[in-house]
Amino acid sequence: MSLGTAVDLEALRASLPAHVLVTDPLALDAARADKSGHRSATSPLAIVEARSVEHVQAAMRWASEHRVPVVPRGAGTGLAGGSIAGGGELVVSVDAMRRLLDVSLVDQSCVVEPGIRNAELNEMLATHGLWWPPDPASRAISTVGGNIATNAGGLLCAKYGVTREWVLALDVVLADGTLISTGHRTVKGVTGLDLTALMIGSEGTLGIVVGATLKLRPIVEGDVWTIGAFFDDEALAAAACTAITAARIRPAIMELVGRDAVSMLAAYTGRPMEGAFVLVQTDDLGAEATSATAAEILTAHGGRVERTDDLSESDALVQVRRQVHFALESFGTVLVEDVSVPRSRLADMFRACEAAAARHGVRLAVTAHAGDGNLHPTFVFEGDEPSAAIWACADEVFTAGIALGGTLTGEHGVGILKRRWLVDELGERQLALQRAVKAAFDPLGILNPGKAV
Amino acid sequence: MSLGTAVDLEALRASLPAHVLVTDPLALDAARADKSGHRSATSPLAIVEARSVEHVQAAMRWASEHRVPVVPRGAGTGLAGGSIAGGGELVVSVDAMRRLLDVSLVDQSCVVEPGIRNAELNEMLATHGLWWPPDPASRAISTVGGNIATNAGGLLCAKYGVTREWVLALDVVLADGTLISTGHRTVKGVTGLDLTALMIGSEGTLGIVVGATLKLRPIVEGDVWTIGAFFDDEALAAAACTAITAARIRPAIMELVGRDAVSMLAAYTGRPMEGAFVLVQTDDLGAEATSATAAEILTAHGGRVERTDDLSESDALVQVRRQVHFALESFGTVLVEDVSVPRSRLADMFRACEAAAARHGVRLAVTAHAGDGNLHPTFVFEGDEPSAAIWACADEVFTAGIALGGTLTGEHGVGILKRRWLVDELGERQLALQRAVKAAFDPLGILNPGKAV
Repeated sequence: MSLGTAVDLEALRASLPAHVLVTDPLALDAARADKSGHRSATSPLAIVEARSVEHVQAAMRWASEHRVPVVPRGAGTGLAGGSIAGGGELVVSVDAMRRLLDVSLVDQSCVVEPGIRNAELNEMLATHGLWWPPDPASRAISTVGGNIATNAGGLLCAKYGVTREWVLALDVVLADGTLISTGHRTVKGVTGLDLTALMIGSEGTLGIVVGATLKLRPIVEGDVWTIGAFFDDEALAAAACTAITAARIRPAIMELVGRDAVSMLAAYTGRPMEGAFVLVQTDDLGAEATSATAAEILTAHGGRVERTDDLSESDALVQVRRQVHFALESFGTVLVEDVSVPRSRLADMFRACEAAAARHGVRLAVTAHAGDGNLHPTFVFEGDEPSAAIWACADEVFTAGIALGGTLTGEHGVGILKRRWLVDELGERQLALQRAVKAAFDPLGILNPGKAV
Repeated sequence: MSLGTAVDLEALRASLPAHVLVTDPLALDAARADKSGHRSATSPLAIVEARSVEHVQAAMRWASEHRVPVVPRGAGTGLAGGSIAGGGELVVSVDAMRRLLDVSLVDQSCVVEPGIRNAELNEMLATHGLWWPPDPASRAISTVGGNIATNAGGLLCAKYGVTREWVLALDVVLADGTLISTGHRTVKGVTGLDLTALMIGSEGTLGIVVGATLKLRPIVEGDVWTIGAFFDDEALAAAACTAITAARIRPAIMELVGRDAVSMLAAYTGRPMEGAFVLVQTDDLGAEATSATAAEILTAHGGRVERTDDLSESDALVQVRRQVHFALESFGTVLVEDVSVPRSRLADMFRACEAAAARHGVRLAVTAHAGDGNLHPTFVFEGDEPSAAIWACADEVFTAGIALGGTLTGEHGVGILKRRWLVDELGERQLALQRAVKAAFDPLGILNPGKAV
C-alpha cells in the first residue's frame, strides 16, 4: 500500500463513525473470496461495513474523489466471483444493513435494507401471510441485495418468476455518492426509463442498492404433492419433463438430476438409487389432481414413480435434490456452471454435457431446473484449481448452450468467471452499448471494474 | 419542406422498395395524432411503412446520416402523444409487420413482429391453449410493439402482471441502423445488463422494436365468477376493495367506477343505477369459493351485491365497466389521465380528485383498476381543447398522486403529455441519469425527441 493511499484512507475514516472502516487483515482476506471457489490475488484496501445509507454515500464520494475502485458486497455467497475484492479496491459492504423497515398487507409490498437474508425476510413476512417468491438455493445465507444484484432465480421460477418480477422500487447510491430512488411503490408505473429493472442483475456495476421496495404475494395455501421418479437416462427424463410442460401443467418445482450425480448421491447417502431422477412438486388449489396427471405422464415416459402428500416422505424426495451439492463436494472440489436453454432443448443440453465431459476426460455431474431449462453442470475434481481440460470442457458447454438458443448464465451472474464468453452471446455491438450504459452511470469506471460487463 | 430535405428523401426512397416510403398527405396528416386527443402542429416529412427489419434499418441509417428525427409508430392508439409526429420528422411505422413467426408449447414462448395486434395474437395462441396476459383496454386495436413501448397494463395486472413480465427477448434496430438482439429465449438469463427490460416502456426513445420473443402461459381454465356491487360512495367502495386484498384474495379483475361516472353511464344506457360501482372477477381453480368470500366482504362494507357465474349476467356486469368510456364521450370531449397510487391510498386519491375538481369547477369522472391502484381520472368538457382550469386541476391531481407515494402514469406512458411533471417524480439527478442512458443509445438524439424523457 503506498503512502498516498494510506493518507487517503484516513480521510475516509474521518468521514465515518468508529468501527465502520475495517482494515483487519482477516476481514480483508475473507473479502478476497466468495462461494465460487475463486480468490483474488491480494487483499483489498479496506472494507466499509455500512450501517446506513450515509455510510455508503460517504464511501462512494471518497472513492470518486480518489478514483478508487469499489466492490459492493453483501454476504459473499455469490457463485461467479462478482463480489471478490483485490488489491487497491475498497469493499463497500451492506451485510449489516439488514432491517425490515415496513410491511403492508394491503399494498402487498415491503421495504427492506439490502443485507437482510432472503430466508429471514420470508420468516418475518410469513407472520403477515405474505411471501417474497425469489427462491435461490442459497436463500438461508444470501441477501436480498445480492438476489437483486444477480436477478436470482431458484427452483420456483417457472411458476413464480425471478427476482426482477418481485421488485418495485430501489434506493441506489450512485458512483458519485448521490442517492436516487428508482421505480414506484405502485403495482403499475411507467414514468421514465425503467432503471429499477436495469439495476436488477447488474452485479454492482451501476450503483449500490441500499434499499428496496419488494412486491409480495399471499403465501400459497393448500396441500403440496411431491413426486419422485427414476428414469433409465436423462433423455427419457427430459422428455417426461417436456411432456408435463406441454400438458400445460405448472408445477411449483420440476428438477432433473443426472445419472452421475445420482450415483454420487447413492454413495454419499448409502441409499441405493440409480438412473436419472425427476422431482415434481405441485401446490395451490388442485395440487392433488395436477400431481396425479403429472405422475401418469412420468410413468408413461418410463419413470419409476413415487407420489405423496405426506410431509416426511415428501421431504425425503426433495432431499434427493437438495443433497446433490453436498454429495458432489464429498468427491472433490466442485465448480458449478449455470447454463440455461429453452426447455425444449433440455435433453440436447444434457447430451452435449455428457459428450464434452467424455471428450475431455473430466467428471461432470449435471442437475437441472427442468421447469425452466436452467442447468448446473458441475465439475468435480481433485486439488484447488480446475485443470485446463476442465476449462476446455466448460468452453464447449457454454458454446453448446449458446448454440441451442441458450444463455451463459441463468441465475448466478457473469462476475469474473464468464466475461470471456460475454461477446459470444451479446455480440460486439450490444456489448459496446452495454458498456456505454455502464459509463452513463459510472463515468470514472470505479464500480466493480472487471466484472459482469 | 426545403429543397435539401426533398433531395434527402429521394435518397431514402431509393434505398427502399416501391410503396414503402409514403408521402400521401392524408397518411401524413393521420400520423399527427394518436388517441390522446393531441395533434402536432404540422405533418411529418414522410412515413416508412416497414415490411421488414431491413426497411427499418434503411430508414434509421438515412435518418442518422441526415440527422432527421424519427417517430416510431404502430397502430397509433397511444394515449399520451408518444407516437405523434410533426414537421421535419420521419415516421417509421411497424404497423404492417404483424406476423406470428413461431409458437412453442414446450418453451411457452412465441416470436412475433411488433405490429401484431394484442387480440389477434391471443386468438392465434388460444388454438395452442396458450395466452399472453398483458390486457390493455385497447387490446383489439393496439400492437404488441406498442404494448412493449409503453409497458402496457390493463385490468388483469394485479394477478397476472404487466408487459415487462411477459417479454423474454427483443430484436431492436438502434438509432444508427444496427440490429441487436437483447435478452434470451430461456426463462432465466442474466448475461449482461437487462437491456430488454430497459427497452420496455421506453416509448421509442432508445431504439425500434422489430421483433419480440414473448413469454406465454397456459390459458387459465375453470369457471369465472363475477360480482357487481354498488356503494354509497367511493370511500366505502375503496375500503371494500382494500379489505379484499387484505384478505389475501387475488381477483383476476377488481375495478371501481366513481359515482359521477356511474350517473353518466345511467344516462347513457337508460338503465337506472347509482352509487360507486365495484366489479370483481375471480378465475382459476377455487373461483367460486373465492368469489363467495369476496362477496361477503363487499356486503359487510355496505355493498349491494350481485354475484353470478352465468355468462350473460356476468357480461352485463362487466359491460358496466367497459361502457364507461363511451358514456363519458357521449357527454363531451374526454381527456383520460392515468395516475397510480399504492392500493392503500385508493380512497385518498378518489377524495383528492373530487376536491380538485370542485375547486376548479371542472367535470372529472374517475374509474380505477382497484386491484392495482391505477386510476383513470377523466375530464369531460365541451370543445376541442382542455381549458386552463382543467390543466390546473390535472396538475393538482398529479401532485396529489405523487404525494401519496404514487406515479404520474401507471400504463399510458409519459409521451408529450406528462413531460413537465417528470422531474417532480424522478428528481433532477435521476432525470439527468435517464437522459445519459438515452444518449448512450441515441447520441444524435434523433429517436422520438421531445417524448418520454
